[in-house]
Amino acid sequence: MATSHPVYLEDLAVGDIFRSAEHALDTEQIFDFARQFDPQPFHLDPQAARDSLFKGLAASGWHTAAITMKLLVASLPLSGGIIGAGVELQWPRPTRADDRLHVVSTIRQIVPSRSKPDRGIITVECHTLNQDGDICQQMVTQIVILRRPG
Amino acid sequence: MATSHPVYLEDLAVGDIFRSAEHALDTEQIFDFARQFDPQPFHLDPQAARDSLFKGLAASGWHTAAITMKLLVASLPLSGGIIGAGVELQWPRPTRADDRLHVVSTIRQIVPSRSKPDRGIITVECHTLNQDGDICQQMVTQIVILRRPG
Repeated sequence: MATSHPVYLEDLAVGDIFRSAEHALDTEQIFDFARQFDPQPFHLDPQAARDSLFKGLAASGWHTAAITMKLLVASLPLSGGIIGAGVELQWPRPTRADDRLHVVSTIRQIVPSRSKPDRGIITVECHTLNQDGDICQQMVTQIVILRRPG
Repeated sequence: MATSHPVYLEDLAVGDIFRSAEHALDTEQIFDFARQFDPQPFHLDPQAARDSLFKGLAASGWHTAAITMKLLVASLPLSGGIIGAGVELQWPRPTRADDRLHVVSTIRQIVPSRSKPDRGIITVECHTLNQDGDICQQMVTQIVILRRPG
C-alpha cells in the first residue's frame, strides 16, 4: 500500500504490504551510534572487527533497529502512531557500512480489542533489507492501532 | 556477579545475576534520539504527548533498548563481547525524561554448541528498571559466548 493518510484498523487487511524509502548507512553513522550506545570493538574499529565473529565492521543491531524505526515512521502511517507493545527481533546477517537499507512491512494479524472499543492490535512483520535484498533484520511486532472514530 | 574480567561459558551458572550502573535520562536525550530515529509527536512534543496513549512525554522504546545495551556492555563482560542472536522485547511502561535507568541481567540458560566446540549460546533475561524499581523494558536474548580456550 502507498498512502500518506492515517491508516485506521478498518483500512487494513491481512497481507497488506508497506515499503519504505531507503536509508544509506556509512562508517561515521556506525561509529556515532556505537560510541553512544554499543561501544564494542566490532562496531568501532575495522581492524578489531576483522578478527571478530562479524569478520568486518558491523553496525550495532540496535542501530539497525533504530534505522528500521525511522523508516517505519515514514512508511507505515498508522492512526495514533507506531506504539509497539512487544517485539521479536533477529539479525540474520551483519549490517555493513555501505549498506542501503529499506523496510518491507506485512500485516499479519488484525485483532480488535474486546475491552477497548476504540482500538485494536495488529501484528506486523518487518524485514529490513540491504541493496542486494539480503535480510539484515527480521522483526515481528504488535502495534496498537486506533479504530476509525464514530 | 561483579567482575571486570572476560567471562567465558564455563564461568557462568544459571541464575547468575549482573547489575549495571545507572543512566540518567533527560528531555534533551529523548528529543535527540527521537529526531534521528523515531520522530513521532509523543517523543518530541510534551503537549502532543499528553494527548497520546503515553499521557506524557516518553522515550522511544528503541532509545530505552539502546541505553540498555550501553549499560549491558559495561556490566556483562562476556568473552567475545555481546552479540545477540535473537531478542524478545516488551515495554510494560513508558520511560520518562526524569528516569534513571539500570539493568539487571539474569542468566537463564547455557547451551554449549554441538557443531562449534569453541562457543555456546546463553539466554539472558534483562530487566531495565527506573529509580522506583518499575520495569520499563523486559528483554530475553540469546547471546553467543566463547568457551575458555585450551
